[in-house]
Formats: sequence, structure tokens, C-alpha cells
Amino acid sequence: MGPDCQSHQCQGQLIEMDQKPDPMSNQAPVPAADPDGLTRLFNPRSVAIVGASDDGTRISGRPLRYLREGGFQGAIYPVNPRRDTVQGLRAYASLAALPEVPDVAMIAVSAELTLPALQACTARGIRAAMLFAAGYAEAGTAGMQAQQALADLAQAAGMRLLGPNCLGVFNAETRYWGTFSSTLDLGFATPGGLAVVSQSGAYGAHMAYLAARRGLGVSYCLTTGNEADVDLAECLLWLIERPEVRVVMAYAEGVKKPSLFLQALRRAHALRKPIVILKVGQSQVGQRAVSSHTAALAGSDAIYDAVFRQHGVHRAFSTEELIDVAYACLRGIFPTGRKLGIVTVSGGAGIHISDVAERCGLDVSPMPLQAQRKLTASLPYAAPENPVDVTAQALNDMGVLNQGLQLMLNEGSYDALVGFFTTVPSAPSFAIALRETLHRSVGARRDRLIALCMVADTATVRDYEQAGYLVFVDEARTVAALAALTRFADTWAQPLPEVEIASGAAPNDPRLGQHPLSEYAAKRLLAAAGVPIPTERLARTAMEADEAARAPGNVAGGTFALKIVSPDLLHKTEVGGVALNVPATAVRAAFDTLVARVRAAAPQARIDGVLVTPMAPRGVETIIGVVRDATFGPVVMFGLGGVFVEVLKDVTFRLAPFDEAEALRMIDEVRGARTLLAGARGAPAADVAALAAALAAVSRFAATHASDLDSLDINPFLVLPQGQGGLALDAAIVSRSQRDTGPGVTRP
Amino acid sequence: MGPDCQSHQCQGQLIEMDQKPDPMSNQAPVPAADPDGLTRLFNPRSVAIVGASDDGTRISGRPLRYLREGGFQGAIYPVNPRRDTVQGLRAYASLAALPEVPDVAMIAVSAELTLPALQACTARGIRAAMLFAAGYAEAGTAGMQAQQALADLAQAAGMRLLGPNCLGVFNAETRYWGTFSSTLDLGFATPGGLAVVSQSGAYGAHMAYLAARRGLGVSYCLTTGNEADVDLAECLLWLIERPEVRVVMAYAEGVKKPSLFLQALRRAHALRKPIVILKVGQSQVGQRAVSSHTAALAGSDAIYDAVFRQHGVHRAFSTEELIDVAYACLRGIFPTGRKLGIVTVSGGAGIHISDVAERCGLDVSPMPLQAQRKLTASLPYAAPENPVDVTAQALNDMGVLNQGLQLMLNEGSYDALVGFFTTVPSAPSFAIALRETLHRSVGARRDRLIALCMVADTATVRDYEQAGYLVFVDEARTVAALAALTRFADTWAQPLPEVEIASGAAPNDPRLGQHPLSEYAAKRLLAAAGVPIPTERLARTAMEADEAARAPGNVAGGTFALKIVSPDLLHKTEVGGVALNVPATAVRAAFDTLVARVRAAAPQARIDGVLVTPMAPRGVETIIGVVRDATFGPVVMFGLGGVFVEVLKDVTFRLAPFDEAEALRMIDEVRGARTLLAGARGAPAADVAALAAALAAVSRFAATHASDLDSLDINPFLVLPQGQGGLALDAAIVSRSQRDTGPGVTRP
Repeated sequence: MGPDCQSHQCQGQLIEMDQKPDPMSNQAPVPAADPDGLTRLFNPRSVAIVGASDDGTRISGRPLRYLREGGFQGAIYPVNPRRDTVQGLRAYASLAALPEVPDVAMIAVSAELTLPALQACTARGIRAAMLFAAGYAEAGTAGMQAQQALADLAQAAGMRLLGPNCLGVFNAETRYWGTFSSTLDLGFATPGGLAVVSQSGAYGAHMAYLAARRGLGVSYCLTTGNEADVDLAECLLWLIERPEVRVVMAYAEGVKKPSLFLQALRRAHALRKPIVILKVGQSQVGQRAVSSHTAALAGSDAIYDAVFRQHGVHRAFSTEELIDVAYACLRGIFPTGRKLGIVTVSGGAGIHISDVAERCGLDVSPMPLQAQRKLTASLPYAAPENPVDVTAQALNDMGVLNQGLQLMLNEGSYDALVGFFTTVPSAPSFAIALRETLHRSVGARRDRLIALCMVADTATVRDYEQAGYLVFVDEARTVAALAALTRFADTWAQPLPEVEIASGAAPNDPRLGQHPLSEYAAKRLLAAAGVPIPTERLARTAMEADEAARAPGNVAGGTFALKIVSPDLLHKTEVGGVALNVPATAVRAAFDTLVARVRAAAPQARIDGVLVTPMAPRGVETIIGVVRDATFGPVVMFGLGGVFVEVLKDVTFRLAPFDEAEALRMIDEVRGARTLLAGARGAPAADVAALAAALAAVSRFAATHASDLDSLDINPFLVLPQGQGGLALDAAIVSRSQRDTGPGVTRP
Repeated sequence: MGPDCQSHQCQGQLIEMDQKPDPMSNQAPVPAADPDGLTRLFNPRSVAIVGASDDGTRISGRPLRYLREGGFQGAIYPVNPRRDTVQGLRAYASLAALPEVPDVAMIAVSAELTLPALQACTARGIRAAMLFAAGYAEAGTAGMQAQQALADLAQAAGMRLLGPNCLGVFNAETRYWGTFSSTLDLGFATPGGLAVVSQSGAYGAHMAYLAARRGLGVSYCLTTGNEADVDLAECLLWLIERPEVRVVMAYAEGVKKPSLFLQALRRAHALRKPIVILKVGQSQVGQRAVSSHTAALAGSDAIYDAVFRQHGVHRAFSTEELIDVAYACLRGIFPTGRKLGIVTVSGGAGIHISDVAERCGLDVSPMPLQAQRKLTASLPYAAPENPVDVTAQALNDMGVLNQGLQLMLNEGSYDALVGFFTTVPSAPSFAIALRETLHRSVGARRDRLIALCMVADTATVRDYEQAGYLVFVDEARTVAALAALTRFADTWAQPLPEVEIASGAAPNDPRLGQHPLSEYAAKRLLAAAGVPIPTERLARTAMEADEAARAPGNVAGGTFALKIVSPDLLHKTEVGGVALNVPATAVRAAFDTLVARVRAAAPQARIDGVLVTPMAPRGVETIIGVVRDATFGPVVMFGLGGVFVEVLKDVTFRLAPFDEAEALRMIDEVRGARTLLAGARGAPAADVAALAAALAAVSRFAATHASDLDSLDINPFLVLPQGQGGLALDAAIVSRSQRDTGPGVTRP
């Protein structure tokens, strides 16, 4: 960019558009395979810039300048009726005057002029447009209506829209710089396998710029703005299907097209392309700020978290973490084990790295004894176990350092190595020798994942990277990134369940939604779905209750719980509708007492009978629930029962459906669950497999009834000692119709 | 440093020392005020380098080269009997030949030659020495003995030792570069208020280098190595008392002189000098690696954590965090409130920053309505609430940006501001205007804490820093550093209790340690210390038990707990020694039953009687304990009782003694404690003040009996409803003598 650009005056960047239909419409050159129309948007062969300014420093002038300075090879058509040329290029008075139908039109005019400009696009047969103007859905009701008008117009014309209120896109593969982001003034990205997609324009450009500055090859940067049409999910899907894209870095406030989003995550999982995402809006202020996400549910951030875990998406919590993990992913090695070898010139740093590794779930296991002996033989001062502290002495004899590295690489059976070398790669006395040694050590082993913590100038860092090393300054960030790679490998090793999610295609169960479901009916439904319930019977008379208590299969001398069954009573205890620890001989009398009490307390309630259930054995109380997320549909919740869930509110979620392996991961996420289930306070170990099976069964039930299920609660689900399974002791199911119509029925 | 340094050959860096006593000993010039001898070590006016090499690239050659290149103004005496000159300076054949007694001797010879060199130092009357050689305590038993010999020699001669196995020190204030750290090849530090102290040499140099690279003024870098004599605590204390030191950054594996360490933390607290520390050895591997810390107690890392919290030390978990917080501290503004204002050119980044702020406990409260209206008037597209999103539009009119900043500064009543400007400070079109605007905005308000998230070259960053801004790249790190400043202010607002800690000076209680303490005796001791206990009586006969149950003050119709009292029985339940819910009328019979059962089950046990206690009302069960930390002495533990502590193992610690305010902070650290005490599951809110008072009382008791108390357990301490106090329902105290001698007595 020349320095004179800044002194240019704005000239006619707001223009009126020619709205007449154009005879050349429908003659646009359609890309070979562009079923969703996105290739025109992100990889166009020709581009019109409506409102192109002669001043290359202005928002409406920058895209043209960037396209030319950045070497775009396609056709560029500035549209500006007030000038013959724009930035030295022939200007066209209108879209109608263009010699061909461009693949995409950038609309760089104000909000007032954007709709007319879009109309001119449809008239000209343009099938993709990008809208920079702000003042739409983010600016209130009027803006929302104006945005809807844009979307309606585009949909009617079969045109794809990016924006409004977006910063545009760039495609470094074809050097298409369709953006006014001033970060391009600092340099153009070099393609290299990383794609950036962001709902926030400035933040997307920020991510892409910092990634490029770190040396990452940024192939794409797509910003979606208000998403009147094309949304984050579609972009993600488009990017993941590009063979040149190996890693995707994303910023999201919320997802407008959840099923496409899930499809993208599933494709990324199938293709083993890591997605690293910063999902904002966890905080109260953040949620308020993400107000465009109208259906936002309080706490729905936890559901996003579940979606990310379930699909192996790395959720980052800072820009640095995004870039660190993307950087490590681009190396292309995802260790399937957790064994971390540490070699260091500082014992202190070695201990610190060990601490971080344990915190990140990596395993700093010792070198095999024989390898330790070899190391000690050549470097007596070294700590040979792991961390291998070669001390500063090793720098005086690089051969010894090389030997140590070779031993760790060849005999340590580590899944990844970290080397701490502080400023040594920059030290005049050691830089060259160290570089040669390290390049030689790993040169033939480019299949091994080795990260160096070191401080050096950019050229030196790039040189190490070229040789196959990951290079970081900070030890903690190094280890965290390596741990993230391991988690990707973990997730990819597990197939995702092959079920259409939240599609509503599953058949409705006639029993759901007919009328409020009693506990008895809810349990029957769950039992049919594979969730174990007690061997309980519905007794309509005292005689039937007595028979139920005396039925074969009951434990001799066991006692019973009696519970009133009524579709009108959700809180049975409050009307005296529950009796516990009733001996078999007293069940008949207890039936009569119970019914009399309830009739007195709630004369209007219909009574279906009394549930006679053997008193449950000792077990661990847990809670299994299903809630309906406004974005993603039915979601299964798991927590520890009783005081835990009430006091700690520590629960975890997964989209339905999922399998037993995923259920086990859920259980591990709840603090204390493994300890309690392993048999705390002298209790026997609980049947974790049965719990996992119940969770998976509930998730299949929830997915099957996605269209008609509102919520489900099993509280408690009692986990019995190992081998004895579990029991849904109480259950409530609310259907979607019921939630709206059922008298007095609320979620318990 | 010239490039030729690398080609020099090693020449005589290992020399033999003259061991004859020197007639000039005891004539060393003593610094004006150097009671602990450390000023000679860290701020010498003259230095001898024993084993100085002519090769300035070698370990034994670097200190001399650095002293000269770095401009040390004191006298330098290379001692090398094989050369007339070393690096162009006159060499001395022995310490005896020196023209004066130097303040300090650097011993840059191998381990075998170090003891003789030290003997020569004492003979010459040198009062401070620094030992570089490795191969001592870190290398096994023989090394440990050799190290002890060094320490003994120095102590006998009244000489202070730094090391062995240390990297030396530097003092940028006087340009004394007494170290062989090759980081000095990359530049000498500029003093500026930051001191670094580290047990690890290489890591200490690494910290100091990275801090200097970030632009921090590093006045001191002290590394202590094996700490045969001078330890981290003494260095910390020395540094904190230097007026030019404003912030200390430390690396620690363990503390050898805990009372000096605590004294240093208390002085830092009193002088409001922030300490930022990386304490390693949390992980199993890390603890194994910190093997020199012989008295290391499993889990003692939690005690360090308590010590840091209690004294307001910031514990960092990465090098970056150390430097971030030190950097922010050097600005010298510690906000006393948590209100954070956010101004951003990216709405997305604003939401992200809000999320991080909430996570860090900061309050993103909205701008006052009137200020919002003013902002909207001048910038209609801006989000005026907080985050204030000025959008990229503001960059076209810096006056508007300035107005927004002024409104936030003057009318927002924020304790700190964060500005997100991404690459704008580098963008050719905006850089100058933005800099002028921001410099103008804050120029007159250097008392305000404003951090910018921005990407720019170093010169630009320094320029913003000169103008009073903190500058970061990453948003999350920015907010975390600001939150750390707030925590320092919080701690400084609370006085530390004025008690001699763990000194053993408190009078022994004759009741402690005489014989094993029964529950009854333990409770009497606690009651005397101010811990509330039930109104229970020790009944020696059935008649006395009956009287106790009928005593005035007991609730009419209340029931009683009867518990056997015996110094020989710690597990009363197992021998049938407990009866609960006994009505007053049945107490007499229950006494006889209890005694008979215990006599049958444990015929040898002495029986002091039976404790008759009214059954406790409903309350929240907690645990209060005292354990003896091998380093710091008596430590008070707090946790939630019952299933919580057993399953979650979530407890927190504080050194004894502390006050009620500190106890409240402890309570807040235990997950779920506040929720449970506030009245979960329909229970009334509990008497948190009484719980805090009991914790503080226990801490005073523990401090008073520091010399004779081994452990104490109050399990449960029942917290009653608000206004009703609490009750130590069960208690056990083990004295130190008792732990070793008491028959069959173990901690319950």
C-alpha cells in the first residue's frame, strides 16, 4: 500500500443502484460443483464491488485495493456511477453495465442503499452477495425487519447472502481478499491448511492475523456477521469439506442452524479435522450481549459444552489457546497415548512441566531402567528418570545431548516429547551447535511429536519448525496444547452414534402426550426403552395390593413402599400418598389408609390405584434427566442425587442419543461420582456399567421421542452394587403437548 | 560480546587453591549495614573470581566477561595461578595475593576444588562466597555430606554462602553481574523495581530474561541453588527491605527456613510489595523431583497454597502468568473495587472479555444511564452499556472515541478499564490518530488503571506504556492480571494477625501430653479455648447419669446421647459404647447397659464414666481439624462433614492463628459450603459467624499449643441455625508426646 492512500478523499462511495431487470440474468457462470452456492461466495472467479471508493483507505475502498495488492487473478468490476475509474480501474455505472454476471457482489454501501443494491443483483442474475452495512438485527426491531427483507429477497431469487454487518472473507488459496479488514494492511496471509470462521468480523480478523503472525498458514477467513442467510454452520461445513483445510478455528456466539452445525461437527470427526472454537456468552453480561441469539436458554452454554465434548471439538477460553491448539494441530500428529517425555536444561523447569502435565492428564512416566543407565553413563550429572535433566553441562558436549534425545525417542516409548531449552537456541555460544544437534536428532523422525520451549528470534523459530519441531515460549501452554492433541485422538478413536439427531422423524409414541403421565405409566415407558425399574405392581384394590406383596420373586421378609398413582398428583407425599417400609402382612391395611388419606386431602384427584414396590436395597442415588434445549433439542443430564445435586449443582449434559462409552465419560465429569460409585463410606462398589446403560437407554428414548418429549426426570436412579444393576425409583415424563395443556402439571 | 569468544580454548579454569592462612584476614571492609551478610553477596564493592578462565564463553570465564561488559564499577580480582592475566585483567595467583579482602568470592571451580577454595576464603577473611559447582546434595549421600562440610566451614568462619549448584546473582542497580547465565549474552537488564529470586538457576535466569524482554525493569536476579546456607526466604526478606524493589517474582520448590519465609511474607504485606510465586512440586512426579525437600509431606502443597492465600501472595501456574502479574503490579495501581469497564472495537471481543471477567470475579456493571445516553448521541451505532462497543466506525472520528473513553473514565466509576484495539495501533491509517487520542484521554489521568489489548511492534507498545497504559496481546491474560491486582488490594486491606507463629514460645498446657486425652477432656480444653460444646456431663454412676438427664436447662422431653469415656478407647461405637436418642427416663438403665457392654468387649479399658449429652438439634455438619505441617507447624483444616469430605475431599487450610474474617474466606473456598450453610433442602440458614468464630478459636488454640499439639479433630462441628451458634459434637486431641507413646492411640 502506498502512503498516499491515506490522503485520498472519499469520492462517491454511496451510490444509487440501477434497479432495472437485466437481460443477462440467469447467464451467470455456475461453478462446477456449488450445490449450496457458497463456492461463489468464498472462491469467486469474478467480483463486483458495489459502491467501490477511489479512496483505498476507506471501508468501501479497501477491498478493491486489497484484491489488487494481494494479487487476485479474477475479474474485478468496481461499480460507481460517479466515476469513470476507481483506483485506476475502469468503473461501471451499474451492475447492468457489467460485461458478465460476476460470481459475487460485494455491497459496500450504507444500510439505506443496501436493499436497492441487492435488488439490482437479483435483477442481474448474481447468485451470491456479501453485505458490509451495519444497522440491522443488531440495532433493534426496525433493523431486524430490514434484515428479513434482505433475506426474503435473496431467498426468492435463489441468491446466497453473507452478512449484513460482516467484515467479508478472504481466501488465500486463490488470493481473493473480499474484506475491508485493515489487518490486511499489515500483510496478506499465506495459505497453509488453517481456516478461520467467525460470527464477529473484527475478532475473526484478529484471530486470523495473530495466527498468521505466529507463522500459521491461514487459507481462509470467513466472517458471517448477522447471518441473514449463510451462517457459521454452513461455513464450517463448506470449509471442512475442502481438502486443503486441515484445521478450523472458530468464534461463535450461538448457532442458528443447529442440525447443519452438528452435521459439520460429525463430518469433521469423520475426516479427523480438528475444530478449535471460542464460544462466548457464558457470563451473564456475555449472554445479555449475545442478544441476537433470541432462543438463548439460561444455562444453554452448558449444552454447547456438551456438544463440543461429544464431538471432540476443542473449546478454547482465550485467543492464545485457540492459536496454540490450532498451531499444534497443523503439525498433523495426534498421539494416541498420554506418555510425555521431558528433556530439560533446567531441573526447575522440568518439575514445573511435570506439574502442568499431571494437571493436563498426561503421564510423566520414567524412562526404562536400561535407558536410564545408558544416559547416566554418558552424563553422570544428569537426572535420567523423567524429566531428563541434562543440565547446562550437556551444552558443552552436544553429542551427549543428542544421545539423550535418541534414548528418549527410541527407548522411552513416549507419545510426545517436550524439550526445555530457554534462551540457549539464541545464545551465541550454543545456537548453531544446538540447532545442528536437534535437527539431527529428530531429522529422521518427523513422525515424532516434539515440542520445544525456547526463546529465539522469529527466523530461528521458523527454522526449528521447518525441521519438524513445535516451538513455544511458555511451558504451560506447550503442555496444554499437547494434551489437546491427545484428546482429539481419543475422540476420533470413538465412532459417533449413527443416528439422525433431533430430527423429529422418529415415530410418536401414542402413550406420550395423550394425557398427563402417571409415575406408573412413565416407568412402563422407560422399562420398554430398556431402563430398569423395580418389580412393582399397580394395585387397584387392597386385595390386589396384598397379592402384589405376596407375589413370588419378592424377597422373604422384605418390606414395601406404597405410592398413590394419580395423573392429577405430582407431589404424592404432600397428600399422604406414600407409605414406606410396610411389611408384607400390613400392605392390605396400608392400602386402605393411603387411599383414605388421599381422598380426604385431594377429593378431586383421580386415583388409578396404588403402586406396590419392594423397598429398594442400598445403593448410590443419582439423577438422570432429559431437558429440551432451544437450539439442539433433547439433552440428557446426569448428576449425583440428594444433597450433591442440590448443593453442588454439578451436572453434565450430552445431546441424545449416545452410547455407553460416552455415558461413562459423562459420569467421569461429575465431581465425586467415581469416588461415590467406587464405594465410599464402606459401601460396596456400584454397578457403573448399569448406570451407563441406563443413561444410554434414556438418550435413545429421548432421541426417538425428540418431537414430543418435553422433559424427563428419573430421581433417583439408584445404582446397586456391582452386578446387580440399577433401578429407576421414581420417574416423571412431560410431553410437549402436556406441558402446554395439562392441568396443574409442572416438572417436579 | 565479540564473535571470537566462541573460538577461545579453555585455559586452566580448574586451579588449586592456596590454603595457607592469610595475615590480612579480618580486615575486610564491612558494608555499613549488613547484619545478615547478604549485602556483601548481592551488592559487593569488590569481587574475587576463583578459577577465572581466560575463555569468556566458559562457565568459569563468563562472570568476568559479564562484569566488564556490563560495566561493574567495583574491583575485580581474577584468581588463577597459571596466568598473569585473565581476559586482559591482572590475575592473582591466590586469594592471599589480593591487595584487599574482597566483599565476595565467586568460586568457579569444580566440586573437588570447591572446599579448598572456600578454606582459602576463610583464611583470607572473606565473609561471603558464591559456589557454582554442582554434585552436592542433589547428587546423593556423599554430595550431601560434602555440602554439609561447606556449610560447617562457612558457619565457623562467620561467612555467608550462596549455593552450591547455583547460577549466581545479578544486581542491575550497581551493574554487578555475578553469574554465568548465558542469558546475559542477549543483553543486560535495566533496573526498574522488579526482583527475581529462584531456587532453580536456569529457571531463575529464564524468568528474569523473559521479564526484561517484556520491558520490565529487573533490578535483581538471585538464584540460591542447593541452599547450604543462604536460602530463598532470606533472599526474599533482603529484597523486600530494599526501597528500590517494588515487586518480587519467585520460583520455589520448598522452603528451608519457614519462619523467615513467613516473616518475609508479612513484611511484604506490611510494605504492600506484591510477591508473585511459582511453587512447583504439586504433581507426584514433581514431588519426587523435589527430593531435596526432605521433610516434604504428602499433600503439603495445599499448605503452601494456604500460606500464599493467607499472606496475599499471588501463586502463578505458568511463567507467563508470573510475568503478566509482575508487569501489572509494576504499574503501581491496585484497585480496591471490582468494577471493570470494557471499551472495544469488536463486539465479539467485548463479549469474550466479559466472560473472562466474570470467571475472574470482576464485575462488568453497566455505564450509568446518563452516560449511555451521551454516548449514543455521539455514536448511534455504539453499544453504550458495557462492554462499550464503539465499533470500527469510531476509528473514522477519533473525537468520538475520545468522548467515549472520557465518559467511561469520568462517569463510569470503574475501578479499571480494558480497551480492545486489536491491530489498530499498527494500522497505517489509524496508528497515529489512535495514539494521540488515547494519550490525550488518559494523559491527565495517570492514576487510572487502563489496560489495552493490542498488537503492535515493541516501540509502539513501549510508547503506550510510557503514556501510562498496560499493554497485553491476549484478552484473557489482561483480565486475569487486573483481577490479580484487585486481590492484592483485598489482602492488604486486611491486617495479618499479630502473633508469633509456630514459635513454640506459648506455654504448654499441663493437660496436653500428660496422658491420652478422652473426648471429655478434649472438649473441656476446647471449651476453655472458646469453642462451643454441648452442655454435657460426665457421669460416673447410673445415679449421676440420671441426675445429668434431669438437670435444669435440658429441653423438656428431649432425648440424650450416652457415650463411654475412656482414654483407651478411640472407637467407642465398635465396643457398644454409644447409645443415642435415649429418653430421660431411660438414661439410668442405659448407663448400666453401656458399661456392661464395654466391660465385656474391652475388659482392659479404663472407664472414666459416661458422657450424657442432650441430642443435638438439626444443623449442618462440618469438620474442623488441626494437622501439623512438617514445614510450617500447626495448620487448621476446614471442610463440610459427612459424605462431602469423604467423597469430594474438598478441604481448605490456613496457618494458625487467624481471625474470623480469614475464617470466612476459608469457608468460601470449600465448594458448596456457602450453599449448604445458607439453607439448602429447606433447612434454615446456619450460623456462619459462629462457625467462623470456632475456626478462629481453634486456630488460636493451635498456635498457643504449637509446641505440644500433634493433631485435633472436631468431627462433626455442627453449625446450628442463625443466632444459635454451633456445637463441637465430637472431638479428639493428640499431643506430640502422646502420638509417640500412647498405647493404641491413633488419630480417629
